[in-house]
Amino acid sequence: MSFGLDNLPYGSVIDQQGRRRAAVRYDTSVLDLTDLAPELFETGTLDRLLAAGPDVWSQVRARVTEVLQQGEGELIPLDAVRPVLPFTPGDYVDFYASEHHATNAGRIFRPGADPLPPSWRHQPIGYYGRSAALQASGTPVHRPSGHVRTDSGDSGVAFRPTERLDFEAELAFVVGAPSEAGRPVSVAAASRHVFGVALLNDWSARDIQAFETVPLGPFLGKSFATSISPWITPLAALEGARTASSQHPLPLPHLHEAVFPHGLALDLEVSVNGTVVSRPGFAAMYWSYAQLLAHLTSNGAAVRTGDVFASGTVSGPRADQRGCLLELTWNGTEPLTLDDGSSRTWLQDGDEVTITASHESITLGEVTGRIMP
Amino acid sequence: MSFGLDNLPYGSVIDQQGRRRAAVRYDTSVLDLTDLAPELFETGTLDRLLAAGPDVWSQVRARVTEVLQQGEGELIPLDAVRPVLPFTPGDYVDFYASEHHATNAGRIFRPGADPLPPSWRHQPIGYYGRSAALQASGTPVHRPSGHVRTDSGDSGVAFRPTERLDFEAELAFVVGAPSEAGRPVSVAAASRHVFGVALLNDWSARDIQAFETVPLGPFLGKSFATSISPWITPLAALEGARTASSQHPLPLPHLHEAVFPHGLALDLEVSVNGTVVSRPGFAAMYWSYAQLLAHLTSNGAAVRTGDVFASGTVSGPRADQRGCLLELTWNGTEPLTLDDGSSRTWLQDGDEVTITASHESITLGEVTGRIMP
Repeated sequence: MSFGLDNLPYGSVIDQQGRRRAAVRYDTSVLDLTDLAPELFETGTLDRLLAAGPDVWSQVRARVTEVLQQGEGELIPLDAVRPVLPFTPGDYVDFYASEHHATNAGRIFRPGADPLPPSWRHQPIGYYGRSAALQASGTPVHRPSGHVRTDSGDSGVAFRPTERLDFEAELAFVVGAPSEAGRPVSVAAASRHVFGVALLNDWSARDIQAFETVPLGPFLGKSFATSISPWITPLAALEGARTASSQHPLPLPHLHEAVFPHGLALDLEVSVNGTVVSRPGFAAMYWSYAQLLAHLTSNGAAVRTGDVFASGTVSGPRADQRGCLLELTWNGTEPLTLDDGSSRTWLQDGDEVTITASHESITLGEVTGRIMP
Repeated sequence: MSFGLDNLPYGSVIDQQGRRRAAVRYDTSVLDLTDLAPELFETGTLDRLLAAGPDVWSQVRARVTEVLQQGEGELIPLDAVRPVLPFTPGDYVDFYASEHHATNAGRIFRPGADPLPPSWRHQPIGYYGRSAALQASGTPVHRPSGHVRTDSGDSGVAFRPTERLDFEAELAFVVGAPSEAGRPVSVAAASRHVFGVALLNDWSARDIQAFETVPLGPFLGKSFATSISPWITPLAALEGARTASSQHPLPLPHLHEAVFPHGLALDLEVSVNGTVVSRPGFAAMYWSYAQLLAHLTSNGAAVRTGDVFASGTVSGPRADQRGCLLELTWNGTEPLTLDDGSSRTWLQDGDEVTITASHESITLGEVTGRIMP
């Protein structure tokens, strides 16, 4: 069973009467959480559960397990509900935590130079993104227009639909318990603030991004849509997936993985129209979620309930483990062939991209999206 | 009178009984708005007014004017209340819309190269920032720590309090009426979405920023604090300040200032501990707020009530019109002398930075902040 008692991701669904309910996914059903703890779930969202902190998270997970084991509670077939974004997003940050992705991007965009930026091994690199771009898996993605370089026209610049639409396979971390301003979250305390994880697709328009990105970073080439799974797997379900990363040089003390490792041995799979195009392993990430959160708060900034920080593209060392088309097609120079015989450098209208991930019996909720003109 | 009937900025204040009330600033008092339109103001914030759109904005402004002219309404002395951030911020974007600032920054960081990035004259350059960093004027600013380059130590990198703390004098635009996803806001329609303007100080730690900024842009060097005036001046008060900018080459059609100009002839003044260090003119900005909003939504992204976009540092052509210490001290190489005889390259603990602005009789609410260790 992909979504058994050891998993139990949380979400929020619209039922056939149009009511919104907080829910847990179990096998091919969802368990309505409303009556289990009305004070937490009467809003139909996970907002109050997220804010309640790790002791309540443990209690609710234990109670949900008990209810399901005893056959109590209201189960609704999964195909009779529509999952929606289950919490109110705060600030959204996207990191760049895969050494393989950052190295490939550096080789593509700065050939001949050191592929990793000078600070990359010293601190996690990231940027703030548009929080309102977060949308639940299944929501269509409309091909954005933007300023791009062109060979035609007087100015060398055109405003037109992107011709280099890409996906980025990532893992998102959802902040539950807020931190205090001026009090950085330590690596060891990070798991008391992070509620859970969800697969994320950071859709990217590479031609728009390339023209706008100097010197302030990605902007409209990213802000049109960011898809996230509506099922948030609690960290508690991933205890067995913990794994260590090897870091040279050792980061400065406040970023040490001192107590136990926070890497996660999740195997991702990315498919385009049903053809698997990549199988990146999250275990190969350089920076752990605990290090990302420690860094994010190291300047005194607090995190709030609903803040989301994502890993950045997950890529592994092998060519078939690259987490975006930029790398898979080497910036459009090496087309992929799909099972139907068609080839892709970038995404076409109608293409559907699906990202899944698992560790042994634990499966994350998928994130999928189809490109619309 | 600096805050007369032609001005009337909106805010939200905590009164001596600890109640939060929506208010208008008038001379040395504030007018409590609660009873004027309870359905809009019962929350004590401006959120519902912002969302209500331009027709309601006009009606409320007319009614407030009438109430004040007739001596009705409850006036509270300004010094008996504490202004707070008056709306719930959505996403926060910071632009880079001053040609003089961008040129100076380019000369400092990329000497010998073209100081303006290649796309700068074709489209407004900007980035998303941390929305939760927005704090009301008067809130202390704690000197952040971060990763910086160092000559000592094995790694060449240290984590320590910033030694290059800077201000950036900016104007923020507060989105009122939301736009629809997939429907870019035209330049001509921008003023129906922007509720008003407020002075903003984008505090910046230049050493942290310099080390982290490649390739994804500013991050922790900015996210620790962004101060904003709690008084939002409605666009209606600034009709007389409209002025045109000269743009070469002409931007692409969707960024043309087709109907009337959206530049604003506001004169800013920046002081450190009472010494005026700069007098930038907002009229010299290259991109108007209408062009910024049109660009921000040009990829299909919607804006929400409470979204804030800022101009970027406001600098003029003269050396005494530069809007940040980076430019004023040419990256710390040309110290400023304050009236007390002390000199500054960067901000010291205890320093207080105040930004004001006016156009004829219209004065914007100031933004001020003091540096704490």
